[in-house]
Amino acid sequence: MRLTTLCYMEKDGCWLMMHRVRKQQDENSGKWIGIGGHLEDGESPDECMLREIREETGLAPEGLRLRGILTFILPDWGDELTFLYTCHAKGDSLPPLPDCQEGVLQWVPLDRVTDLSLWEGDRIFLPLLLSRTDLFSLKLIYAPGGSLVRAVLDGEEVPVLPGTPG
Amino acid sequence: MRLTTLCYMEKDGCWLMMHRVRKQQDENSGKWIGIGGHLEDGESPDECMLREIREETGLAPEGLRLRGILTFILPDWGDELTFLYTCHAKGDSLPPLPDCQEGVLQWVPLDRVTDLSLWEGDRIFLPLLLSRTDLFSLKLIYAPGGSLVRAVLDGEEVPVLPGTPG
Repeated sequence: MRLTTLCYMEKDGCWLMMHRVRKQQDENSGKWIGIGGHLEDGESPDECMLREIREETGLAPEGLRLRGILTFILPDWGDELTFLYTCHAKGDSLPPLPDCQEGVLQWVPLDRVTDLSLWEGDRIFLPLLLSRTDLFSLKLIYAPGGSLVRAVLDGEEVPVLPGTPG
Repeated sequence: MRLTTLCYMEKDGCWLMMHRVRKQQDENSGKWIGIGGHLEDGESPDECMLREIREETGLAPEGLRLRGILTFILPDWGDELTFLYTCHAKGDSLPPLPDCQEGVLQWVPLDRVTDLSLWEGDRIFLPLLLSRTDLFSLKLIYAPGGSLVRAVLDGEEVPVLPGTPG
């Protein structure tokens, strides 16, 4: 199972989002997601998350916290276990963003995030980052092609509408 | 990286401990540890933990909660990422324990646990299960032969005494 980290960095009512439009063979192609990547040999999830934030944004995080454990069942790409974090960006104002090889970084106001092209499952866990204070465990089961078919939050089924892929 | 779960079930001031004396090629041979095992294909950590508790003890857990993320660097056995849980056993008294293929199960009073043969790193995280309410992240770096050489708790070094293996 692939092991990854994912972080939503908050600042002044915005989340730092990345539009994934720069990599070949990217399972997230065209989608907006947070910052993150794969665990390297010998890394803990926290260490991976700090490295990915540094590499992709160059920004200094404050208050990094593990918020959720995501289990993705992805027939097209292989299953993935994701450590989901939040943090804040240091400083007084929205920091300038570097050029990133993985995609285009942008500060997006929280109330505009749902307008973006997101994975269906992300629409389940992103609101939990605002409403939950305790750690949650979410399993997201996708069909080939990328439609979400089941979601299980802390052992309870979450209603999922049959929808278009992604 | 191997993915495992580990649970300390509490009841009446005791933890359910397993003396690992029954498996060939067991990295935990001779040690006392909690209940747990490897994630199977398509399982979330919570699902794995519930299955392992059911298979190894037959007991019904209450209040299962993820308490820590353990990253083990183990030159002898390969690195391992462990989801560390606690729970309570249902019922009014200490439940009888089944025969288990993995080892011998026993209810051990909390103040006697440190008398057992434990991994050195376990002596760091077991007290945290009593003192911490928030989730913690602990990296334990072992040398070949099984001596603990470094421990990092939530990004901070924990003093480690040079000691005998295990």
